[in-house]
Amino acid sequence: MGPGENATPDDNEIAFELGRAIAKHGWIVLTGGRSFGVMDAAMKGARDVGGLTIGVLPDSNDRNSSENAQIKIVTGMGSARNLISVLSSNIIVVLGMAAGTASEVALAIKSNKKVILLNQDEITIRFFKNIGTYRVMVAKNVDEVIFQIKDYLAVHQAGLTTHE
Amino acid sequence: MGPGENATPDDNEIAFELGRAIAKHGWIVLTGGRSFGVMDAAMKGARDVGGLTIGVLPDSNDRNSSENAQIKIVTGMGSARNLISVLSSNIIVVLGMAAGTASEVALAIKSNKKVILLNQDEITIRFFKNIGTYRVMVAKNVDEVIFQIKDYLAVHQAGLTTHE
Amino acid sequence: MGPGENATPDDNEIAFELGRAIAKHGWIVLTGGRSFGVMDAAMKGARDVGGLTIGVLPDSNDRNSSENAQIKIVTGMGSARNLISVLSSNIIVVLGMAAGTASEVALAIKSNKKVILLNQDEITIRFFKNIGTYRVMVAKNVDEVIFQIKDYLAVHQAGLTTHE
Amino acid sequence: MGPGENATPDDNEIAFELGRAIAKHGWIVLTGGRSFGVMDAAMKGARDVGGLTIGVLPDSNDRNSSENAQIKIVTGMGSARNLISVLSSNIIVVLGMAAGTASEVALAIKSNKKVILLNQDEITIRFFKNIGTYRVMVAKNVDEVIFQIKDYLAVHQAGLTTHE
Repeated sequence: MGPGENATPDDNEIAFELGRAIAKHGWIVLTGGRSFGVMDAAMKGARDVGGLTIGVLPDSNDRNSSENAQIKIVTGMGSARNLISVLSSNIIVVLGMAAGTASEVALAIKSNKKVILLNQDEITIRFFKNIGTYRVMVAKNVDEVIFQIKDYLAVHQAGLTTHE
Repeated sequence: MGPGENATPDDNEIAFELGRAIAKHGWIVLTGGRSFGVMDAAMKGARDVGGLTIGVLPDSNDRNSSENAQIKIVTGMGSARNLISVLSSNIIVVLGMAAGTASEVALAIKSNKKVILLNQDEITIRFFKNIGTYRVMVAKNVDEVIFQIKDYLAVHQAGLTTHE
Repeated sequence: MGPGENATPDDNEIAFELGRAIAKHGWIVLTGGRSFGVMDAAMKGARDVGGLTIGVLPDSNDRNSSENAQIKIVTGMGSARNLISVLSSNIIVVLGMAAGTASEVALAIKSNKKVILLNQDEITIRFFKNIGTYRVMVAKNVDEVIFQIKDYLAVHQAGLTTHE
Repeated sequence: MGPGENATPDDNEIAFELGRAIAKHGWIVLTGGRSFGVMDAAMKGARDVGGLTIGVLPDSNDRNSSENAQIKIVTGMGSARNLISVLSSNIIVVLGMAAGTASEVALAIKSNKKVILLNQDEITIRFFKNIGTYRVMVAKNVDEVIFQIKDYLAVHQAGLTTHE
């Protein structure tokens, strides 16, 4: 999860690497599905190594969706689709920050999901740790994210859905 | 689309064959994702020939979902998820009838989607033809459904998303 | 509940009378809130006698809403708001028919709500009686609707929310 | 907007005063509608002076709703109803903080709504100012909130819906 229009070039570059790394492990990349920003970059990274990508779209058609989203869930529910993105994910990795992204982190915490804050500033980390306590983890780079996901999987066994 | 609890054994048998036939053509089977009725049977049929299946779930977790749904979209929006199922589909095939199913057909017509009514009674066909006109087609068996989908694809070119 | 753009002049006239009659009894008129069709006419009727009106809007702002909706619930969820209209109502009265209206009747039945079909044709009545059984009642005019609502209230005691 | 179960006694006391003050000015109090926490207290305050209250409920029935919500909008959409609460409001006043509340603030900013943070700590204020810039205002007590609402109304003219 991360900003669309307001994503920085750095956000997008890291999102691409993150998408690649997630897909390499056989995990599915699910995003908000739009054609720009962190969403698009992460799915592009996943596609680069043959991974499976899902875009949960806000509009009532797929016109502004990313070509890197293989499966397009068309919700027609605007920002209410952020809840669906969160509920359909096993772990939420957050890169960059904007209002829509913040709502996803908050909804993830509300829904008792694990959240990994990647490359976030001190204020953001402290705010979400205050409301999310143990659900909120912090990572400084893509390797740390992957390590934390593996750690979560080892403990919870339930396991993320894998894509063969 | 079709009934859950109220599906007849006949509905389920035909749904299984329909799921198989759809998957054989490389198309994705998307249903309401629950573990019984037409939803489950259609996905089971698709899985039987190695097809890809998506379940758009009503609850806020995947506890009552079908094991035949490979990709589980968790909406937490109850019957409002019926709109998402419809908007995310290229063509809606309807088998069996119940209140939830009827809402999906109505929402599909409202959203200008193509609807194929499979094995429906005269009252149902006349009701939906009255409100849906050209969007509503009728089929008597799985072969007719597949023929109509191919016909739709040939005309619209846009093409259903294929799964390789 | 009833059609917007596709409402006939007759539908709108009866909707106005229905809105008046409902409001006169101190009950709230809740509709889809748009500025035309049965929705607008019913709220206009209610306002004519000083009743309270609620519009549950599909868009993410209130730009196309009826000026006769005193309370505007802005959902931003398109046709998914039909579920909210239904769940927030005690009794659903249906006048005229179109795809959106049909989805409301189906969702009302699915949600175990009482539905009164006003002035509907034989096909519509038989279709919804088939899927809704005892939940579906039929009325030929506004007086019959009011009588049925009173009957429902007398039996269920719970009572509709009254507006003083 | 504010926490339910996790509201402090102080939050609830201020919410009651805030609800009273809002209602005294003829404005409607809209909350998440549940029977506890800031939601219930604010509506109780409004009712204390004869104000109009609306509860936008998460469940598919009104069983756990506050008796202080006169108008109950039943969404059946869980936390996705937070978007509806926000879109249906002219100004969002936030008292106390929890995950659900944070999602409402974020969705309000995303939807270009004015947000007043009442009695929030430094971290919370800085986080939401970072993502919401000019949309986010800060107030230390109920009087400041009322002053800011009046100021907003004077500038925007559009005016909040008043309840006579």
